[in-house]
Amino acid sequence: MTDKFREECGIFGIFGHAEAANLTYLGLYALQHRGQESVGISTSDGHRLRQHKAMGYVADAFDEDALKHLVGTSAIGHVRYSTAGESGLRNAQPIQIDCAHGEIAVGHNGNLVNAEELRNALVQQGSIFQTTSDTEVLLHLYARSKAATPDEALVEAIQQAQGAFSLVLLTRDRLIAARDPHGFRPLTIGRLGDAYIVCSETCALDLIDATWVRDVEPGEVLIISAAGVKSIKPFARAQRAHCVFEHVYFARPDSYVFGQSVNEVRTAFGRQLAKEQPADADVVVPVPDSGVCAATGYAFAAGVPLQMGLIRNHYVGRTFIEPQQSIRHFGVRVKLNPVKSILAGKRVVLVDDSLVRGTTSRKIVKMVRAAGATEVHVRISCPPTVSPCFYGVDTPQRAELIAATHSLEEVRKYIEADSLGYLSLDGLLAAAGPDRSSYCTSCYTGEYPVAFPRNEAAYLQLALKLVK
Amino acid sequence: MTDKFREECGIFGIFGHAEAANLTYLGLYALQHRGQESVGISTSDGHRLRQHKAMGYVADAFDEDALKHLVGTSAIGHVRYSTAGESGLRNAQPIQIDCAHGEIAVGHNGNLVNAEELRNALVQQGSIFQTTSDTEVLLHLYARSKAATPDEALVEAIQQAQGAFSLVLLTRDRLIAARDPHGFRPLTIGRLGDAYIVCSETCALDLIDATWVRDVEPGEVLIISAAGVKSIKPFARAQRAHCVFEHVYFARPDSYVFGQSVNEVRTAFGRQLAKEQPADADVVVPVPDSGVCAATGYAFAAGVPLQMGLIRNHYVGRTFIEPQQSIRHFGVRVKLNPVKSILAGKRVVLVDDSLVRGTTSRKIVKMVRAAGATEVHVRISCPPTVSPCFYGVDTPQRAELIAATHSLEEVRKYIEADSLGYLSLDGLLAAAGPDRSSYCTSCYTGEYPVAFPRNEAAYLQLALKLVK
Amino acid sequence: MTDKFREECGIFGIFGHAEAANLTYLGLYALQHRGQESVGISTSDGHRLRQHKAMGYVADAFDEDALKHLVGTSAIGHVRYSTAGESGLRNAQPIQIDCAHGEIAVGHNGNLVNAEELRNALVQQGSIFQTTSDTEVLLHLYARSKAATPDEALVEAIQQAQGAFSLVLLTRDRLIAARDPHGFRPLTIGRLGDAYIVCSETCALDLIDATWVRDVEPGEVLIISAAGVKSIKPFARAQRAHCVFEHVYFARPDSYVFGQSVNEVRTAFGRQLAKEQPADADVVVPVPDSGVCAATGYAFAAGVPLQMGLIRNHYVGRTFIEPQQSIRHFGVRVKLNPVKSILAGKRVVLVDDSLVRGTTSRKIVKMVRAAGATEVHVRISCPPTVSPCFYGVDTPQRAELIAATHSLEEVRKYIEADSLGYLSLDGLLAAAGPDRSSYCTSCYTGEYPVAFPRNEAAYLQLALKLVK
Amino acid sequence: MTDKFREECGIFGIFGHAEAANLTYLGLYALQHRGQESVGISTSDGHRLRQHKAMGYVADAFDEDALKHLVGTSAIGHVRYSTAGESGLRNAQPIQIDCAHGEIAVGHNGNLVNAEELRNALVQQGSIFQTTSDTEVLLHLYARSKAATPDEALVEAIQQAQGAFSLVLLTRDRLIAARDPHGFRPLTIGRLGDAYIVCSETCALDLIDATWVRDVEPGEVLIISAAGVKSIKPFARAQRAHCVFEHVYFARPDSYVFGQSVNEVRTAFGRQLAKEQPADADVVVPVPDSGVCAATGYAFAAGVPLQMGLIRNHYVGRTFIEPQQSIRHFGVRVKLNPVKSILAGKRVVLVDDSLVRGTTSRKIVKMVRAAGATEVHVRISCPPTVSPCFYGVDTPQRAELIAATHSLEEVRKYIEADSLGYLSLDGLLAAAGPDRSSYCTSCYTGEYPVAFPRNEAAYLQLALKLVK
Repeated sequence: MTDKFREECGIFGIFGHAEAANLTYLGLYALQHRGQESVGISTSDGHRLRQHKAMGYVADAFDEDALKHLVGTSAIGHVRYSTAGESGLRNAQPIQIDCAHGEIAVGHNGNLVNAEELRNALVQQGSIFQTTSDTEVLLHLYARSKAATPDEALVEAIQQAQGAFSLVLLTRDRLIAARDPHGFRPLTIGRLGDAYIVCSETCALDLIDATWVRDVEPGEVLIISAAGVKSIKPFARAQRAHCVFEHVYFARPDSYVFGQSVNEVRTAFGRQLAKEQPADADVVVPVPDSGVCAATGYAFAAGVPLQMGLIRNHYVGRTFIEPQQSIRHFGVRVKLNPVKSILAGKRVVLVDDSLVRGTTSRKIVKMVRAAGATEVHVRISCPPTVSPCFYGVDTPQRAELIAATHSLEEVRKYIEADSLGYLSLDGLLAAAGPDRSSYCTSCYTGEYPVAFPRNEAAYLQLALKLVK
Repeated sequence: MTDKFREECGIFGIFGHAEAANLTYLGLYALQHRGQESVGISTSDGHRLRQHKAMGYVADAFDEDALKHLVGTSAIGHVRYSTAGESGLRNAQPIQIDCAHGEIAVGHNGNLVNAEELRNALVQQGSIFQTTSDTEVLLHLYARSKAATPDEALVEAIQQAQGAFSLVLLTRDRLIAARDPHGFRPLTIGRLGDAYIVCSETCALDLIDATWVRDVEPGEVLIISAAGVKSIKPFARAQRAHCVFEHVYFARPDSYVFGQSVNEVRTAFGRQLAKEQPADADVVVPVPDSGVCAATGYAFAAGVPLQMGLIRNHYVGRTFIEPQQSIRHFGVRVKLNPVKSILAGKRVVLVDDSLVRGTTSRKIVKMVRAAGATEVHVRISCPPTVSPCFYGVDTPQRAELIAATHSLEEVRKYIEADSLGYLSLDGLLAAAGPDRSSYCTSCYTGEYPVAFPRNEAAYLQLALKLVK
Repeated sequence: MTDKFREECGIFGIFGHAEAANLTYLGLYALQHRGQESVGISTSDGHRLRQHKAMGYVADAFDEDALKHLVGTSAIGHVRYSTAGESGLRNAQPIQIDCAHGEIAVGHNGNLVNAEELRNALVQQGSIFQTTSDTEVLLHLYARSKAATPDEALVEAIQQAQGAFSLVLLTRDRLIAARDPHGFRPLTIGRLGDAYIVCSETCALDLIDATWVRDVEPGEVLIISAAGVKSIKPFARAQRAHCVFEHVYFARPDSYVFGQSVNEVRTAFGRQLAKEQPADADVVVPVPDSGVCAATGYAFAAGVPLQMGLIRNHYVGRTFIEPQQSIRHFGVRVKLNPVKSILAGKRVVLVDDSLVRGTTSRKIVKMVRAAGATEVHVRISCPPTVSPCFYGVDTPQRAELIAATHSLEEVRKYIEADSLGYLSLDGLLAAAGPDRSSYCTSCYTGEYPVAFPRNEAAYLQLALKLVK
Repeated sequence: MTDKFREECGIFGIFGHAEAANLTYLGLYALQHRGQESVGISTSDGHRLRQHKAMGYVADAFDEDALKHLVGTSAIGHVRYSTAGESGLRNAQPIQIDCAHGEIAVGHNGNLVNAEELRNALVQQGSIFQTTSDTEVLLHLYARSKAATPDEALVEAIQQAQGAFSLVLLTRDRLIAARDPHGFRPLTIGRLGDAYIVCSETCALDLIDATWVRDVEPGEVLIISAAGVKSIKPFARAQRAHCVFEHVYFARPDSYVFGQSVNEVRTAFGRQLAKEQPADADVVVPVPDSGVCAATGYAFAAGVPLQMGLIRNHYVGRTFIEPQQSIRHFGVRVKLNPVKSILAGKRVVLVDDSLVRGTTSRKIVKMVRAAGATEVHVRISCPPTVSPCFYGVDTPQRAELIAATHSLEEVRKYIEADSLGYLSLDGLLAAAGPDRSSYCTSCYTGEYPVAFPRNEAAYLQLALKLVK
């Protein structure tokens, strides 16, 4: 299903392990859901950095030769959605450079809201940009810093960044992790024997059998070297603004993010949704895979049986040849298939995690009805998404968000559901953990924790330019 | 998970459609779960046959060029597990030949138990064999038939076959479907406008929006031509012997096979299993994807909540680079990840559809326990598999079937479960539909509906020779 | 340059070497010029045969894995031009089968003129054909033979073939080589230590450092086994009919075929051509690579300097993207580039080995003139090709042979040369070695040594059918 | 043959043509001999730049999709030898950036001897380097220039470069070509209709049917825009130092470089060599392809017949599987095959263009002798190469240059020739055109026209670092 917000990146770093590149490869494989179009790993052997980047899935992009080449005991890696076409590999991360402070590589999850201002200022000072990524700005700030030590230079650079950033950086002899003071995007710490690991989600720790330690704190810069771990907090304290959409959709259910089990939070969303938006129905059916947790909670709370009435097809190739004779709901049908024996004659509650443009939901509802459902009640386990995200998420502009421009009833009509119910913001935050003030909910409210210095139109124009 | 019986083939045929090749491609895509290693399509334009075969997934093996080349309004297609190495493409189907009765192509799901006898006799008469497949025998019998018409020749050939066969055949001007008199493997009929379709499962009809008509009956030969459909029943009536494992594991849950909804039957297995093998537990967790339906039924009947405590990773590449430092349960872990928040501190009922060697189950149980489960109760939604299948299923020999050589308690100990319970044969058949006598259950009973003319050792020696 | 007759196959066989597959791979690499579109190797380990076939160049189609899989101490291999599209790999050789006499594989260079008759008869007896190749006929004859021993069966089969055939065959314990009684196509014998080798040209022996022994004689069947080498001559003595075009164009200049050095014969053609068709010119320029030997001879005999005025581009990919703005002579220009400093202001003798349709020659002449040549005198080192070949060469039908339908002056005008001269048949034969009666010259004379049982139209219709 | 100096790059640029990308692709194809491992094209549509880079041959690396994406009427392209492994694509050119003066892309043939000094200074000022290429330095100088206009900034940047550089640069609305004041590497100008072209050799003009205008002059900067062509000469006049090795080996024989026909110069080398180093021989045989021109001249001047006694194999794949049983001269044999009928019993003059380490020559001499040559007289059409090149050529360090460390007689013994003769420096320069003082001959003399600021050891250490 492509009608979703898209997480833009997953990051991983490891320090002090003989198989640094190989474990980074596995960690990125576990984070594959956070970015599926390009992947890169940089390693350090204590003297110099090496790198391999490629388009495609982790398991395809790296073979034994590529990993063997990446010698060293420390490494960082990055998966991302890349923009289409020629700029793809150019913008893949880590970005790796040489400068006055030595070689450095960086992987970034997030988005700097003042990137354009910083870039313009740097360009005026004679800097050259080889990518269209906001991340390159940080490297220029680092390179130009007159600070006495690389660590100080790095802190100085990071301090100038505004917006959302979870970062892993690699130098000859250091692994650095940093997180913006609001903590928009997740970043967590683990250990494997003597080695240190930082990564976007705990599922990457699980795959390599590492132990979870704690999250990198918002506003914290961790410098990991042979001398040990140094924690710096160079930012003024700020209100936490964890992206609640990580719990709604982005993160893997077996991960813990922002200290909460994603599965538990997501299931709680479903339970709360059942209370707020009950439906007189025979069966609860999730839109797989993302709707499964919430549907489980919904079914449990509603006392209505959960059934896998839609099955996801996992053999989908990248391109699919469509017949000339049009097949109804073809685009959805090759990815999801309805189970008639579950749906036929039933009043169905269809649980999905979110609804963005509504185009896919409309096709699914039609397909479910064509499979014999007598009623289709759509339940969405988060509030209506009415505002774009400027903190590292790939969202359409406001005009394309159906809930921003249509009333609930209009949306219901458009997707041809018998009823439509969203989880309330209050319900969402109540279910998301003890501290409801720790979340960013700007996509539901339009209230942005970090001021975005331009209006949306200007930003989108910029984005267009950046995409190139 | 590779520790499963494996269906060996899926077949599809269409007659009288302008996009015959393209729809066959889609049909095979829907049947991909029945064979993932080679794929082939033959088409007829009324004058001659064309063919494309390749290794790999349907969506990768056929591009627009390949489909464009396959002109014609009738087509058959085949997906299969191929044997490794050099014989791969050689044994891919359809097998397409020219003979005295003209060109013909055949796709076969099943296994002829008298293939070796027929082959030996044919070889003595001067026939040459280019594949190691039992299917080629049928073509020789057809070619050598002195019957007056190709239709009669075909019937004459098929009559000599013993064992399991669901067949699609294509000649210049005919699509033929045939099913052995026991009806071991499924084969069903659909229509799309004026076109006729035959295929292994109804899910292939659904994808192309075709209408289901009925099953090809056991012992029926259907000859579809411009003159219409002719049904011939050249076999003596025989006891039905539908492969119950289609319901247990092979078929897609959204299909109907042998007239029953797979999802309904599979869910009923779970319900029955809960009655027969209850467990004092906190959560029911399916081994995905194959255990989901039964787990749903189990949870419902047991009144215990169903939770997706194991998540399947869908980015798995064909080869995976393992680190030198051993990671516990690595082989299972890259495919399944445990959700700690569901499993930790819980008494877990783990529902799987079948248990063959036990090796994978053992790893899963360990992994679930490592994720914090306090008890792990394994429930299998079919009886112990104690005998190999000779009717078109890839099974290990008896010595490798753990239930054939170990007591229930020994198996439980091996997989390190707190308890282990199988569905009874009676329970299985009761849940499988109104006519319990219509099923083949030889893998659970060792009672074979069609006498297998050699002992197992000889057969396996033969299989070895056939594999070449 | 594609406007050439095309040799259709190269063959290689080895018996009694620990690295049979690897040496076959190298031998085929040396024979790559005889067929560049598909390649295959069969090996025997004394018990059973293995095979790998693929489309493309030898060096691309076989990697270490493929060779490692081909265990055994005897092997045969084959390179060929395949027909385009779906039938490609299906018709690739060796064809490998199992039959009453055991497993056998065959590689064939040549063409059986009575293949259709034999095939029709076999089909009437119930044989099935999986390829559209005439070679499969031989295997059926072998399989059906009631002879007491495989060797006798093989001889019996080969005796029924008419036309051109140089064959390598491999059974469990034998390597067999056979050549038709006229000896149309080359086949020669070598040794490497204790191992025996048979192959199309001696250049394959040279690459693997093997020693040349002698040619397989026309009409000879060689059976090589652990018991030694047995020579059988089962055919009535026939007039030799070595394909003179092997010396004109097909064979590599460093090979010996039919007992003569190709380079020497080809150079002698050039010398003779200079005598017969002198030109008042400043420079002799070969059309590379095939015209180089003859041009060398021509230049020497004419006392005119030889210069490489046309250079062949060796980076040509399979497909080339042509600009929309037409570039003059683009098709030739990407393959050949004229050297202005050699051509400008010069009277040029352009030496090519043969001229089939004239289309490419016309482009080359224009390009040479555009490069500044004041006169272009085309000299062809063989007589006008006026008849198609039915003995294993890919030739256009008569109507497309420009010399068959146009006078010398018309051809000259068409290719826009200032003069055009062919080598005479007498001159060709005089230069081709001591025994001028030993050659087939049917493409120059229309006199066919083996009666072709149908008229050309029927044959071409057949060919069309065979191509499928 | 790998034992050669290697040209490192070919460049091409076009301004004002509707098919800019496609013609650049063709131009690079014609320049493929100057770099075969990576290729890139940047285009401008007047507003922004686009780029595609890839590893491999031009014809493989660009398909229609890639070209279609490269919209615009101006373009530059680059082919190069890349270093192995991970740094490959990272260092591919054109390098394309955004800076205060706008977007710019650059392709460079040559080597800046003061790159390290410039880089160190830039790094101190805060510049970051994403490649290890000296070319990136130029972009930083451009970006940092405070000059009033981009054109002035560009001139300012280029003025700081020392060493060898032929450059093409592309901005939004300009194509710039520049050549160092010594004119080490070639760069020439052509026109195609109204479009302007700059490229390394005239053969690129020939392929696209463009007209040659003149060379870019040493020290000239050409700025081509919609306003026309502006020529600037910002450098102090310097002694010309055209790389004579372009005539010896690098350039294609059908090109004109430095105003001379490569073929004519190269043939003149051969004639002069025959005068200086005669040999009592039966046949002159070139080492193909590079020795052909000189051999032609040698044969003509010596009155000894030229014969193609070594034939180059053009099907060589990138990797070749060698048998375990060692085959004599295998590495050379798969690339070159000796023609026994030419070599056997003959006194052979073997003409090659240059001799670097001697390892390949040694194998060739042995192979020629094994083919029956009674005497092998090696003649090299340039002087002994005794010094590495620092001006854009990939040469081994001095210690590996056999002529730098061994006497003539020692080299002769090593390569096992009966005699060995080099062309004298005087003879070389006499044959290279009217102005012998216009050439750089540092590889023969060790006299470097541009002072190299470090000693060789330091440079090679640097190169090692640069390669990363």
